Amino acid sequence: MREAFQGELARLGTALRDMALFAADAMRDATTALLTADLDLAQQVLGRDARLDVLRDESEEQAHTLLALQAPVAGDLRVVLAAVHCAEKLERMGDLAAHVAGTTRIAHPGRVVPAELEDSFVELGKITTGMADRVAEFITEPAEGVFPDLERTDESVDEVHARVLARITGPEWSHGAASASTLALVARFYERFGDQAVSVARRVEYAATGSLPRG
Amino acid sequence: MREAFQGELARLGTALRDMALFAADAMRDATTALLTADLDLAQQVLGRDARLDVLRDESEEQAHTLLALQAPVAGDLRVVLAAVHCAEKLERMGDLAAHVAGTTRIAHPGRVVPAELEDSFVELGKITTGMADRVAEFITEPAEGVFPDLERTDESVDEVHARVLARITGPEWSHGAASASTLALVARFYERFGDQAVSVARRVEYAATGSLPRG
Repeated sequence: MREAFQGELARLGTALRDMALFAADAMRDATTALLTADLDLAQQVLGRDARLDVLRDESEEQAHTLLALQAPVAGDLRVVLAAVHCAEKLERMGDLAAHVAGTTRIAHPGRVVPAELEDSFVELGKITTGMADRVAEFITEPAEGVFPDLERTDESVDEVHARVLARITGPEWSHGAASASTLALVARFYERFGDQAVSVARRVEYAATGSLPRG
Repeated sequence: MREAFQGELARLGTALRDMALFAADAMRDATTALLTADLDLAQQVLGRDARLDVLRDESEEQAHTLLALQAPVAGDLRVVLAAVHCAEKLERMGDLAAHVAGTTRIAHPGRVVPAELEDSFVELGKITTGMADRVAEFITEPAEGVFPDLERTDESVDEVHARVLARITGPEWSHGAASASTLALVARFYERFGDQAVSVARRVEYAATGSLPRG
């Protein structure tokens, strides 16, 4: 029974890791599509998003079955509940990548990001997808120091996000209100993606250590 | 055992209902603060938000204890897992109300919403807090027809949200890019609040009927 439980748990962990990698890929492609106004790639990201919903449902079902059949307690119960939370958050990360892709699609053939902000969005894309990749690794191999590390990385997302906001709300902004409001939303999608990555890591950390770190 | 379980479950339901009412109040006050540039009220909303985090933690703990001590299966397990999801989403609704209040605080003594958009934000506030109140009732007394009703109400939130976005990105917008980007974000906070209310209701519906309605 115990061995079967551990096997099932490992399978759930693998499913969640795959979700994190999927979300990382989605945001990576969404960022490329955003910065190159690549409609095909944006459509691909949007088309793939339903897959993450399915993976979330499957993970939840697995967790449900584990709880029903094995009635885990203490640390094991904590891990299964953490998995349920993580699946939800990882699915949301996919939604946020899809929102970036959706913005690209609406603007096409126009470009969402003006030249002066390209570097910032390259950076947002790079840092946040790096976070999702890191979370993927952390899920199957929880190691000390990863969670605080991710929190620090998220601070740099917040910094770039704040810089973008300052730019689009500043006196020198020359691209108009429509562009500014679109960019405020897109920047927020990245910022939320980073938050969710931290929040997945927080649940993994809790499952591994038994104490829930506060953000 | 069974009776004790039902009692604990009812207690959990009451806690979640209180969270929904708390979120409704937060959004109601945040909207008043937003539209009247009331700094005190905005601060109150921000100060109260931590309470919802505590309620979420307590609900989770209750659910955890129920799972560990009673090892529910089938419908009972479904209800406890739904409660865990709902607690997380209700807490998030509080965050979104706090974001509205935070925007008010930053703009003070200025006003975030120009006269021409006041009606739209009154409407957004009214519809979304109404949804949260409805969800509160639905949690303790799940009734047929409430979920699809909430979904329809959320469509009207999306309509007002789209109207606001069209206005701030339209050619007649005269309040500049900074105002537009702030309003795009605030409108999104309401839209997400409505989404989360639907998503709580979806979980409640699933717990009550055993089949998860798709949004």
